[in-house]
Amino acid sequence: MSLPRAAAPAEPVSVPQPAPMIDTSSLKPLLEPRSVAIVGASTVPGKIGAVPVAMLREYAFPGDVFPVNPKAEEVFGYKAVPDIAAIPSAIDLAVIAIPAPGVLAALDACADKGAKAAVVFSSGFAEVSEEGRAAQQQLAERARARGLRIIGPNALGVANIDAGLVASFCPFFKPRFAPGGAVGLVSQSGAFGGYVANLAQDRGLSFTKWITTGNEADIEVADGIAYLAQDDATRVILVYMEGARNGARLVQALEMARAAGKPVVVLKVGRTAVGAEAAASHTASLAGADAVYDAVIAQCGAYRASSIAEWFDLGYAFAFGKAPKNNAIALVTVSGGVGVMMADEAETGGLDTVPLSAAAQDRIRQIVPFAGARNPVDVTGQMLGDLAGFEQMVEVVLAEHPFGSIVGFNAGAGHKEENGFRIQKVWETVRARHPDAYIAISGATPPAVQRAYEAAGCLVFTAPDTAVATAARMARLSARLADAPSPLEAPGAPADIPARALNEHEALDLLKAAGLPAPDVRVAKTPDEAARAAEEIGFPVVVKILSADILHKSDIGGVALNLGTPEAVKEAAAAVLARARAAAPEARIDGVLIAPMMPKGGVETILGVTVDPVFGPMVMFGLGGVLVEVMGDVALRRAPFGLKEARAMIGEIRGAKVLAGARGAPPADTGALAAALVALSRFAAANADRIESIDVNPFLVFPEGKGAVALDAVIVPAAGKAAP
Amino acid sequence: MSLPRAAAPAEPVSVPQPAPMIDTSSLKPLLEPRSVAIVGASTVPGKIGAVPVAMLREYAFPGDVFPVNPKAEEVFGYKAVPDIAAIPSAIDLAVIAIPAPGVLAALDACADKGAKAAVVFSSGFAEVSEEGRAAQQQLAERARARGLRIIGPNALGVANIDAGLVASFCPFFKPRFAPGGAVGLVSQSGAFGGYVANLAQDRGLSFTKWITTGNEADIEVADGIAYLAQDDATRVILVYMEGARNGARLVQALEMARAAGKPVVVLKVGRTAVGAEAAASHTASLAGADAVYDAVIAQCGAYRASSIAEWFDLGYAFAFGKAPKNNAIALVTVSGGVGVMMADEAETGGLDTVPLSAAAQDRIRQIVPFAGARNPVDVTGQMLGDLAGFEQMVEVVLAEHPFGSIVGFNAGAGHKEENGFRIQKVWETVRARHPDAYIAISGATPPAVQRAYEAAGCLVFTAPDTAVATAARMARLSARLADAPSPLEAPGAPADIPARALNEHEALDLLKAAGLPAPDVRVAKTPDEAARAAEEIGFPVVVKILSADILHKSDIGGVALNLGTPEAVKEAAAAVLARARAAAPEARIDGVLIAPMMPKGGVETILGVTVDPVFGPMVMFGLGGVLVEVMGDVALRRAPFGLKEARAMIGEIRGAKVLAGARGAPPADTGALAAALVALSRFAAANADRIESIDVNPFLVFPEGKGAVALDAVIVPAAGKAAP
Repeated sequence: MSLPRAAAPAEPVSVPQPAPMIDTSSLKPLLEPRSVAIVGASTVPGKIGAVPVAMLREYAFPGDVFPVNPKAEEVFGYKAVPDIAAIPSAIDLAVIAIPAPGVLAALDACADKGAKAAVVFSSGFAEVSEEGRAAQQQLAERARARGLRIIGPNALGVANIDAGLVASFCPFFKPRFAPGGAVGLVSQSGAFGGYVANLAQDRGLSFTKWITTGNEADIEVADGIAYLAQDDATRVILVYMEGARNGARLVQALEMARAAGKPVVVLKVGRTAVGAEAAASHTASLAGADAVYDAVIAQCGAYRASSIAEWFDLGYAFAFGKAPKNNAIALVTVSGGVGVMMADEAETGGLDTVPLSAAAQDRIRQIVPFAGARNPVDVTGQMLGDLAGFEQMVEVVLAEHPFGSIVGFNAGAGHKEENGFRIQKVWETVRARHPDAYIAISGATPPAVQRAYEAAGCLVFTAPDTAVATAARMARLSARLADAPSPLEAPGAPADIPARALNEHEALDLLKAAGLPAPDVRVAKTPDEAARAAEEIGFPVVVKILSADILHKSDIGGVALNLGTPEAVKEAAAAVLARARAAAPEARIDGVLIAPMMPKGGVETILGVTVDPVFGPMVMFGLGGVLVEVMGDVALRRAPFGLKEARAMIGEIRGAKVLAGARGAPPADTGALAAALVALSRFAAANADRIESIDVNPFLVFPEGKGAVALDAVIVPAAGKAAP
Repeated sequence: MSLPRAAAPAEPVSVPQPAPMIDTSSLKPLLEPRSVAIVGASTVPGKIGAVPVAMLREYAFPGDVFPVNPKAEEVFGYKAVPDIAAIPSAIDLAVIAIPAPGVLAALDACADKGAKAAVVFSSGFAEVSEEGRAAQQQLAERARARGLRIIGPNALGVANIDAGLVASFCPFFKPRFAPGGAVGLVSQSGAFGGYVANLAQDRGLSFTKWITTGNEADIEVADGIAYLAQDDATRVILVYMEGARNGARLVQALEMARAAGKPVVVLKVGRTAVGAEAAASHTASLAGADAVYDAVIAQCGAYRASSIAEWFDLGYAFAFGKAPKNNAIALVTVSGGVGVMMADEAETGGLDTVPLSAAAQDRIRQIVPFAGARNPVDVTGQMLGDLAGFEQMVEVVLAEHPFGSIVGFNAGAGHKEENGFRIQKVWETVRARHPDAYIAISGATPPAVQRAYEAAGCLVFTAPDTAVATAARMARLSARLADAPSPLEAPGAPADIPARALNEHEALDLLKAAGLPAPDVRVAKTPDEAARAAEEIGFPVVVKILSADILHKSDIGGVALNLGTPEAVKEAAAAVLARARAAAPEARIDGVLIAPMMPKGGVETILGVTVDPVFGPMVMFGLGGVLVEVMGDVALRRAPFGLKEARAMIGEIRGAKVLAGARGAPPADTGALAAALVALSRFAAANADRIESIDVNPFLVFPEGKGAVALDAVIVPAAGKAAP
């Protein structure tokens, strides 16, 4: 018997795939307006209608400012107008800070004055009731009709620090953020956006643009990301989100950031929520909707943080520091034990604490005889007494290897400003000689010294383990950014998928046509036909009941294995048919399936597709048996994708060693497996609206060079099983 | 064929097990001295010999202070003496701050003056050279001979804040720590101990006792833990360690802390280091030495933190707050999305975000109609405008359920002191009505407000996820503290283990005698004997080659399965013997083993023992196959242990679902499995010095009520395989 082979996994032909871009030009009037009207401006400090006016004054916004207030002459030094109609010249941006019932009319009036964008603070829309939802819908439609983009309603607003624009009632824009920041923020939640502004104040970090999207009647998180991807000043994009309205738009925005080489760090809530999607097939139950976000964010080159601290540390690190250019890390510590802790963290994060050469170690021991010289370099407490020696040791380390990261732990050595500045000067020298490295120090550091470090491009963390972990995360994110998706083949062809339950034979046939390897199987209606089919295929064969209505065929005695003669096949087919009719009298039975008996060996895997309501078809991969079902050890990717992503999926499951040949087994044919995943992803993408899920289980992967084969498959059409 | 059964897992008879206690009375002169001499006292501020004198003055140490300095009249206001002999009265504690060569003589002179303890700052001992190690050994011996306990050498010293004692040259005892702290610190590293003192200053946290142990010539980390376990003022013990010199002593100290109901939070470095132990058997390679620390720390009721931040947050939380009394958590937030984030963190940490009743939800919506009312309770931005309403909402939540934890997220609502104090007052009311709950708030909180929260027993965190995660960790640690080990049976009996390689039959016989279920097997020298043995056991049987020198019996055709007749057994025995002789002509062959053929079904597991150089025999448990070998999914416990620990081991592996009956299988007989683990642990403990490792693989666990059986076992005796 010859084994079915996968198509050779040659690199597919690249076809032009112009990345769909989100047009962000309409956001310019929102974030770069020449003039701003504040509807509902207030003279009472702290009020919602007062804060933006006060902040425009505080930030010396260079354009025109028109507070609309029928009772005041002046609001925070700006001449007030009694109503919108009285605004003396055209406006770009309207800030609407009045109760919900008046918003629609205000929007119209502002449009009459030429406004191209509005920030709607007003609450009382979709967040409170169905009526509010309808009002919000009406607001969105009116804005679209009048050619305005809107933020909100129920939003905390936006800011563009360098442009002096604060169109927000967030209290944390005072004290004034410094211009020249590097962090762009997009937050779906206003409360959270304000909280982050407070964190930034505490950390001495400034924003380029600060965008909270609120109810997202129009502008959503993806638009903010797309805008920041094209904003020259923004070097890192921090995103807080609760969910995406439009998955494809989020993917586009993230791909725009990757194309611009900009790291995106995402904090998404709902990590443990069980997806709402009803799990129609077995595979569907394996991948909750949150796991889909995980997969999509990584696939688009972004990074999902697991805590607020991790998320914000990354923003800080990209703003003030450099991402590691390689995985080699040098650790310089005044405590040997803390050096071990840092090496632990490096290894956990995939960084390599490359040992120094014997010669370099000798040179270090010439400076301090009992220093730890291997890397981590333990400079010992002597360092404080002999900073020249310390500098020499650091130089020996750096001369040795082009380390991508250098992390120091000073413990308390720099806690006094005088000593702190002396040590800081040493690191400043290091920075000058190694302008591209990630450099971070940790330990007790007075604020003035910290600012000096940061000005020199050296990061400061309280904890040494965090300093190392952040380097590892930056390295991972940078690698993803650089790792553009593989070119896609021409899209797969739509298949003729009936809107009814498919039997195994039909499912395998469709997948075979799409390029998945599947055995040469025959359908037989009678035991005699079965015997003839077996002779055509060659012995030994398997006989299986063929029915879309019977899912667990073995359980009802619907499978007979390893049949070596026509007689055995005949007998088995008769028995299988009889047992199926007895066990499931209601089932539609299409006959029996005759398939070649597969040789022993090979690794059982599972390939699957679920159509996510937000992101469309997602392809799943895992090992068969307990690893998927009990351990949930699966990899996910949004379809379609190329061989690079398929190979990455195979490598990223925890049980990957099994395919590499664990326990003395030969390595599996991962090339054939990857090609099958690509084919499945193309099929899923081309038929996204016709399917609900696909489950290829088992998909058997033979040893290297021997291919792979789908032994069973279930395709659930989009219309469900009800339609015949 | 009847299945072998495990002994019924009845609760074993409890025998008196007086917990071995470490006598800490000799540490009193170190930490509670009436008088202190500083040898090498200096008048130059900042010098090693100056800091402790200055600090004794700063903290107004109430006892006698004798600076020893031949040139000074007075040191920081204390009258100096020219040499030790000139000290006018008896001293309890000597602080030795002179170069290494003079330390031994100084120790003698201090002993002559009645000193019972010494802190040795001096470096230049074991940390620098072999000569230093010898000098340190001499110092330790002299101290023992003279009846002194010593800290160091190469130590940063100790402090007892309430007693006004700072016997350290750490610079972070100024500004002065407040008395009445709750955190006891034991740090092996002085640099790290100083760094922690700095963290404590920043966090407003004070210590009871602060102990750094340095080179540990005498007093080690375990002694410090034992002392703090018995120290009334200490409510939580923070431990930093690089490794334990004496595993049994660390276990004793941790058990003393558990007996005293005191949480111990351990930061141990070397998480990723591969243990140095050569892995003689397969099982040994599965459990690195660091995993042993993990297991022992948890088994003794302590908690190993995974980062400095987590470790220190727990110290802060136990110092100022209350550990949750149950797993129910209430979440009160001004942002719905952040509420989801907090619920994620609660679920991840094993806490239960119990939904409010419909009635309570109605009451909350009566206060704010569009509040999120289920739990998390989203009080919405209205809260700031209506603090009475906010208080009512919180009351509704708390009246509903005796929540063990209540965590709030204020975002920026309390960033101004005025508002901050108003919100704080609400939480103070909550605290007063719920004195036992864990209460923490998060968001922007000015320092003065933060202090007010802490004074009221409410914790303050910057990040809401950290506030929830800390509650979950405290709950886990508290549960461990309350979960005293199960009473042990009388110790297992030492077995007659030969100092040579054991064959499978001998190994199974020894384990069977120790109480592990094993099949009725017979040894046969000839094919005829084999057939007779099979008839005695009953068919079908298995025939296996019996040789300690052949480890992988199947590979050489040394196993024949499912033999149903005497003739088949005879033939198979002859074939197996012939193949073994051909494949391994050098091997000592003891005949063949005849064993009953096991029925299909049952879960394959692996039980193992390795003797850890620090902690002695450790028992390992995992599922057979890929889960242990590829995923490393094992549980470890220090031997001996009782049924409770055995059951916990079975439950804590990631693949535990397999035993509970995954994929339609019946639940496995975990009672028989637990009994076997207990028996193995007793055997291992009783024979710790005679064995190197044990590997019981597979250990087959049948469905509930049907027992379990060891099918193969390897015991590697301590003397190794070399001795015949």
